[in-house]
Amino acid sequence: MKLLRYGARGAEKPGVLDSAGRLRDLSAHVPDIAGAVLADLDRLKSIDIQTLPLVDGTPRIGAAVGGIGKFICIGLNYSDHAAESGMAVPPEPVIFAKYTSAVCGPNDPILIPRGSVKTDWEVELAFVIGKPGKYIAEADAMNHIAGYMICNDVSERSFQTERAGQWSKGKSSDNFGPIGPWLVTRDEVADPNSLQMWLTVNGQTMQNGSTATMVYQVPFLVSYLSQFFTLHPGDVISTGTPPGVGMGMKPPRYLKPGDVVELGIEGLGTQRQVCEADA
Amino acid sequence: MKLLRYGARGAEKPGVLDSAGRLRDLSAHVPDIAGAVLADLDRLKSIDIQTLPLVDGTPRIGAAVGGIGKFICIGLNYSDHAAESGMAVPPEPVIFAKYTSAVCGPNDPILIPRGSVKTDWEVELAFVIGKPGKYIAEADAMNHIAGYMICNDVSERSFQTERAGQWSKGKSSDNFGPIGPWLVTRDEVADPNSLQMWLTVNGQTMQNGSTATMVYQVPFLVSYLSQFFTLHPGDVISTGTPPGVGMGMKPPRYLKPGDVVELGIEGLGTQRQVCEADA
Repeated sequence: MKLLRYGARGAEKPGVLDSAGRLRDLSAHVPDIAGAVLADLDRLKSIDIQTLPLVDGTPRIGAAVGGIGKFICIGLNYSDHAAESGMAVPPEPVIFAKYTSAVCGPNDPILIPRGSVKTDWEVELAFVIGKPGKYIAEADAMNHIAGYMICNDVSERSFQTERAGQWSKGKSSDNFGPIGPWLVTRDEVADPNSLQMWLTVNGQTMQNGSTATMVYQVPFLVSYLSQFFTLHPGDVISTGTPPGVGMGMKPPRYLKPGDVVELGIEGLGTQRQVCEADA
Repeated sequence: MKLLRYGARGAEKPGVLDSAGRLRDLSAHVPDIAGAVLADLDRLKSIDIQTLPLVDGTPRIGAAVGGIGKFICIGLNYSDHAAESGMAVPPEPVIFAKYTSAVCGPNDPILIPRGSVKTDWEVELAFVIGKPGKYIAEADAMNHIAGYMICNDVSERSFQTERAGQWSKGKSSDNFGPIGPWLVTRDEVADPNSLQMWLTVNGQTMQNGSTATMVYQVPFLVSYLSQFFTLHPGDVISTGTPPGVGMGMKPPRYLKPGDVVELGIEGLGTQRQVCEADA
């Protein structure tokens, strides 16, 4: 299933794509694509999607998941990206937090914060926890995943690395977390470590990679993270980015108002964001 | 007002202390001490607390605030603590995230994670956002604060600093975020930068300081953080710890099962946690 949330920000309704790619309303069956719903996706699979009401028009698409508890990002998880950042591949996963107030829809604008001169892009594969767990064995890890989606891990490099410590400061500005358009359930992704991914700015390809070159892969990450805290339904883990971010270019190339960022991952749809100066 | 949440974990009810220190039930008036309720505390002030139902017995006290969005911690914000950590006072605030799944009640056990040998304590003054805002002027900052509470910023030092980057990994284990017992509304705290604070382990004083020696003070922090992202009602900011953490002792002294941690801040009540090995 391709699950999504549509409508005005803060008032999104749950929806699902039918076999023809049309948007249908799920709100008679679930309150949201969030929390306990993610822990019981089998119940949704019993619904005949073709019988659900079609949604008229082309509503805004919201963040693919609501009620996110933890938004965990994995740093330097592609060896080539670590090299372009001038950093070594870490001996175990680097994790950092993106505050959930940064979460937005896949096509909402990227807001360039006041004073920012180094706003950058990162196409990433994200996964969402369905079944809760702690101290999870790697062999059992995949059973804890509800599905996959695209994340643009928008980053302000000066805030992240030049402003006195800890990356969260440069990862959490408003609208720095577009996720979606869909949450693609786990059964529809045969191998999360073999997906093409790309990102363009104003039509020019900046990132063009594959999850195949990820250092720490999805089942390992589930098990690893669960050694530090319980993973809950609706927790989002974004798994890092391949080479081609603006910071790594010579000279560096950062986003400015009017720039158009488009990105996609094989089977998970696409995102499109226009950059704006934050008011 | 001293607002609090009581009852079983995940099913807490809102309450308030009356003038005699007795617990009374607020659930006829508000659904929770969270979100929009924090943005409109004036409405609660119009209630005659003495007419509310008394709560029988001694229920568990939950985290003083529910539905927390961002849990922002300020690092190295007391010059003496920076010194004992072997680090310089930063030129601007260091911020790091405590994932909200770590939040628990003030007297819930400290769970020592599997494999942990460096679980440590930190008594801290935390404040809670009431009025939302972004790019807030320091002169207007106090109007955005709903109230104050105690936080024990429980930390696993090996996870925090020896496990490949970014402190969140050592700050977010289950039950590493006891907050409360009460959210003391802003009008009852004359000066948040002049409060005595202390922490004992098994009755021995470990921390004994005052918020007067905080480097970056409360109004500055509100303004500073709001340059990076919108602050929302229910966001929690914990402002750092004075000297006396286990890591700073010679030799270092860390928590083990059975240890009893007690802590308090002038006017904000006390917390008491028994340490347990996590199952």
